[in-house]
Amino acid sequence: MKPVSIPDALAALPTRLPPAEARAAMPAGFRAGAIAAGIKPSGRPDLGLIAVEGAPAAVAAVFTSNAVAAAPIRLSRTHLRATEPGGGGRYGWTDAIVATSGSANAATGRDGDEDQASLSRAVAAALETLPERTLALSTGVIGVRLPLPQVFAGLDRLALQLAPTDEGLEAVARAIMTTDTVVKVATAAVELPGPDGEPVTITVSGIAKGVGMIHPRMATMLAVILTNASASPATLHALLSPIVQRTWNQLTVDGDTSTNDTVFLLASGAAAARPVTATGPEAEALAGAIEAVARSLARAQAADGEGASTLITCQVSGAADDADARAVARSVVGSSLLKAAIHGRDPNWGRVASAAGNTRLPDEALLEAAGVLHSEAAARAGRPPKLDVDRLRIAIAGTLVFAGAPLEFDREAVRGTMEAPEVLIRLDMGLGDGSGEAFGCDLTEGYVIENAEYTT
Amino acid sequence: MKPVSIPDALAALPTRLPPAEARAAMPAGFRAGAIAAGIKPSGRPDLGLIAVEGAPAAVAAVFTSNAVAAAPIRLSRTHLRATEPGGGGRYGWTDAIVATSGSANAATGRDGDEDQASLSRAVAAALETLPERTLALSTGVIGVRLPLPQVFAGLDRLALQLAPTDEGLEAVARAIMTTDTVVKVATAAVELPGPDGEPVTITVSGIAKGVGMIHPRMATMLAVILTNASASPATLHALLSPIVQRTWNQLTVDGDTSTNDTVFLLASGAAAARPVTATGPEAEALAGAIEAVARSLARAQAADGEGASTLITCQVSGAADDADARAVARSVVGSSLLKAAIHGRDPNWGRVASAAGNTRLPDEALLEAAGVLHSEAAARAGRPPKLDVDRLRIAIAGTLVFAGAPLEFDREAVRGTMEAPEVLIRLDMGLGDGSGEAFGCDLTEGYVIENAEYTT
Repeated sequence: MKPVSIPDALAALPTRLPPAEARAAMPAGFRAGAIAAGIKPSGRPDLGLIAVEGAPAAVAAVFTSNAVAAAPIRLSRTHLRATEPGGGGRYGWTDAIVATSGSANAATGRDGDEDQASLSRAVAAALETLPERTLALSTGVIGVRLPLPQVFAGLDRLALQLAPTDEGLEAVARAIMTTDTVVKVATAAVELPGPDGEPVTITVSGIAKGVGMIHPRMATMLAVILTNASASPATLHALLSPIVQRTWNQLTVDGDTSTNDTVFLLASGAAAARPVTATGPEAEALAGAIEAVARSLARAQAADGEGASTLITCQVSGAADDADARAVARSVVGSSLLKAAIHGRDPNWGRVASAAGNTRLPDEALLEAAGVLHSEAAARAGRPPKLDVDRLRIAIAGTLVFAGAPLEFDREAVRGTMEAPEVLIRLDMGLGDGSGEAFGCDLTEGYVIENAEYTT
Repeated sequence: MKPVSIPDALAALPTRLPPAEARAAMPAGFRAGAIAAGIKPSGRPDLGLIAVEGAPAAVAAVFTSNAVAAAPIRLSRTHLRATEPGGGGRYGWTDAIVATSGSANAATGRDGDEDQASLSRAVAAALETLPERTLALSTGVIGVRLPLPQVFAGLDRLALQLAPTDEGLEAVARAIMTTDTVVKVATAAVELPGPDGEPVTITVSGIAKGVGMIHPRMATMLAVILTNASASPATLHALLSPIVQRTWNQLTVDGDTSTNDTVFLLASGAAAARPVTATGPEAEALAGAIEAVARSLARAQAADGEGASTLITCQVSGAADDADARAVARSVVGSSLLKAAIHGRDPNWGRVASAAGNTRLPDEALLEAAGVLHSEAAARAGRPPKLDVDRLRIAIAGTLVFAGAPLEFDREAVRGTMEAPEVLIRLDMGLGDGSGEAFGCDLTEGYVIENAEYTT
């Protein structure tokens, strides 16, 4: 059988981002630490605290779209609104983030909100700040209240041992782990101009947790990114939103969006660099470092999906626009059938094509909900179909397998190439210049076993 | 622990449909049969044929929304358009339906379209009709072409042995099975007035297959419903569309919508009943029988989902409207985490609440795609939130477990009640009068094993 060479259009997409290293690197202006307060029955660390030194840090946030938003999210939104009334609860100023794991404090009613407010007051007292300058993250079982006496006792001890160190930041990353099997940290650096134009090194370092209830419209997860750059809350939010669209909103493990998803981006301004505004080369440079960290964390979360053995990356080019490309990529990595096929090292391009064909684009969702066929919806919206199967090309693990019609290929050789920690699926739509990517993982017996256990 | 009694609002929703029996009952006006033509390597039946006796039957169709529509769907739409130009390819007149299984004839390029047209000409020749009066159904592996010589040879034999019998119809139901473990047939009866007003018994009998790639926007599946009632194609389509919304569009096994999903509803008019028009008591009576058959088949498909051991029914009341209720029910039965929890007999109401909170309603999909929170989207759309967790009540297998806040309940007793072939999850939203239901199945190790095998 003659091997089909893979066209350049179906090689991996080039990245314009700086490299990110899988390590925590505490930027100046923050202290952090974590301890085992007794929320988790296992006795593992479950209470983390990040404190801002000196003046409050600018902060931008992205929260879950789940209508059952957990108590820590309701509290954080209220506090952000209090510190920056014009920000709509999406950005503001903060002195501290408290993270609890083991109890999600979601669907706990008014009691849960009061518990979270009490914790906020305790954090403020310990750090000598105002409650509205504190934010909260929480993860764990839904419907379980925080064990406040243990948390308060732990907080008293923890407040004395916060450190401005890489280890302090990594400790928080460990404390927010639930079913995660590896700690997720990432760091990138960028140079920004100082007061006299001299280069100042800016650190961007992030921590995150996965790994179940993960899906677009915020992957279910917690993430905090810290930087010593200087920027206003509104600027941070302008930088963060499109990055979340390209990274965490492109991450799916199991199609479930949790009640607690949160991303915080904090800027201490402790580096002697000029403040970054929302546009211009400095903004682009800082955004690149933030996106490199976010992408690295999102990939680590996908790879550590519950029960997962394989990271699935889908990259799409030739779409009508970037949003279409991202939607197609999300649909592919979200297909249960494809996820199971990848687990079996089956180069099942039919499931790739079918999943791509299932993509729902925002402007057709309304029509499709009314039972209108995709092609009709596209015609009514005055746009070409998102997918023309005659133009579609698919490559799996570097081998072209479909180009408008099935191609002959050496299945056993492709199966061999798929025996890797990451499998790349590439689609070229042949329609335009849009490109994008999404991250997922294989569906395994382990996912079922892990989630069928009696854990309520 | 004091048992919490379940309010009437959380008992199973009453049904207004006539009973449906799980058997095939061939209505007058049709003949059918099936044989093993050699498409399936297993040698099991894989070619089915339903022929209309006398004048063509009126037919309405609903097809997949997958942009990668298979060759049989493209052909059927073209033929429907040819026989009823005003119907837009959604209804028309037909003399025959040919069903093949083992090859989906999807993503097979122009060759696949030509194969399907050849088969159509062969069916027309065998039954002495026109090719455009034939329709086609197909299911099986994507990207595999029909083995035409075997199919033609089989068709010649099959055309001689069609029978106007229940067994003939059931044989077609068997021939379209792929990974199905049980044959899916359902029958309901209704009385309609004859020419002089005397009651005439009308039979409505349906066949269907599941059981993977099943998800709303057409569950992945094939279904054919036959009746001896008399109605125009447009009337049949008007009756069928809302029924599909309430039944097959509420069915999910794995979140994947296939390339081949099709429902055909055929009326032979062979009973001596007056023609049914789109509205009025006769239309309601006939629609009730059709819906009873469709619902029964959809439930059988969910129960026989790949690897499934448990039928999950979610019924929602108290929603703002029926569409909202159906959307919430779909979201609940579609949650991988909940499906795994049901497999483990875990009364994990937190996953029910979270899945309900994840519901995307049509009028917020656009805003949510732009990263807007649900509550904000609802406010902008001038409607109340779809879910107010303070008003939400949840019952699992007949036990109230959540009412704005967690309730104490006897977990072991509920686990015991969940040890049944069907688990009912009831939600009352406390917002309005809308109600609806959806059907799914548990997620098991068997699903993963079945779909991870090398089957391309």
